[in-house]
Amino acid sequence: MRKKLLSACIVAALGGGFAAAALAQVKPETLVKQRQAAMTLQGKYFGPLVGMLKGNIPYDAAIVTRNAGFLDDLSQMPWDGFTDATKGVKTATLPAVWAEPAKFKQAQDQLRTAVVALNAAAKGGNEGAVKAAIGDVGKACGACHDNFREK
Amino acid sequence: MRKKLLSACIVAALGGGFAAAALAQVKPETLVKQRQAAMTLQGKYFGPLVGMLKGNIPYDAAIVTRNAGFLDDLSQMPWDGFTDATKGVKTATLPAVWAEPAKFKQAQDQLRTAVVALNAAAKGGNEGAVKAAIGDVGKACGACHDNFREK
Repeated sequence: MRKKLLSACIVAALGGGFAAAALAQVKPETLVKQRQAAMTLQGKYFGPLVGMLKGNIPYDAAIVTRNAGFLDDLSQMPWDGFTDATKGVKTATLPAVWAEPAKFKQAQDQLRTAVVALNAAAKGGNEGAVKAAIGDVGKACGACHDNFREK
Repeated sequence: MRKKLLSACIVAALGGGFAAAALAQVKPETLVKQRQAAMTLQGKYFGPLVGMLKGNIPYDAAIVTRNAGFLDDLSQMPWDGFTDATKGVKTATLPAVWAEPAKFKQAQDQLRTAVVALNAAAKGGNEGAVKAAIGDVGKACGACHDNFREK
């Protein structure tokens, strides 16, 4: 019974948290789907924060804290999906991802740093500091997209 | 400058963490894309745990802890995407999602409970307890898919 139910739950996706050897067994299309899913969800949970920064939607500290926490996890998820094996899959990713790995890693680290700071600011509870931190996350998103993603 | 970079980062996705009024402004197709993204990533991070339970890949406590933590967030993310407005979008979702909302909510809660227990087991560090908890998460996935998702 457990086996049957588990089987219903097993997805082709055996990606995350794996050594390169294990990742190599995941289809490139699956890796792309997974990394795009992480981007989609970063958008879902960062979008409202941008709305608050711009004053388009009311500032809500509870949503900021919740979404910042989600982003803390989500901002770790896309990167192992950019393997060499995915080079041939048609996406908006620019070849610079593979041509300039150190620069790409730096861009990831910039986002992580900004998201960690956003979480700290959210805990601090100062709206001005939170909004500055939201701005810094936005800059990290934009900087990476500018260099590694088609316009 | 901040504005320019932020704009590069703003996605159409203004979903998560919103009241129904705000959610109503998000396109149904976007809500579907976001909830499917959450399912995709649950698959990415739960798949390896199933592999460990089945003995297909070596047990790795660090990966269990990391993935269980991710699942703690991810298992909260799909549900606000199942709005009435998305009924018309072609997906594998069964009409039971909207016809039996209490039962659907119960299925979500079962997953949440199982994922919280998995995190507790991962912290406890007993491999047998962790594997039992992985099995329970799998049952929760399977039970929900059986009732609310096309075969």
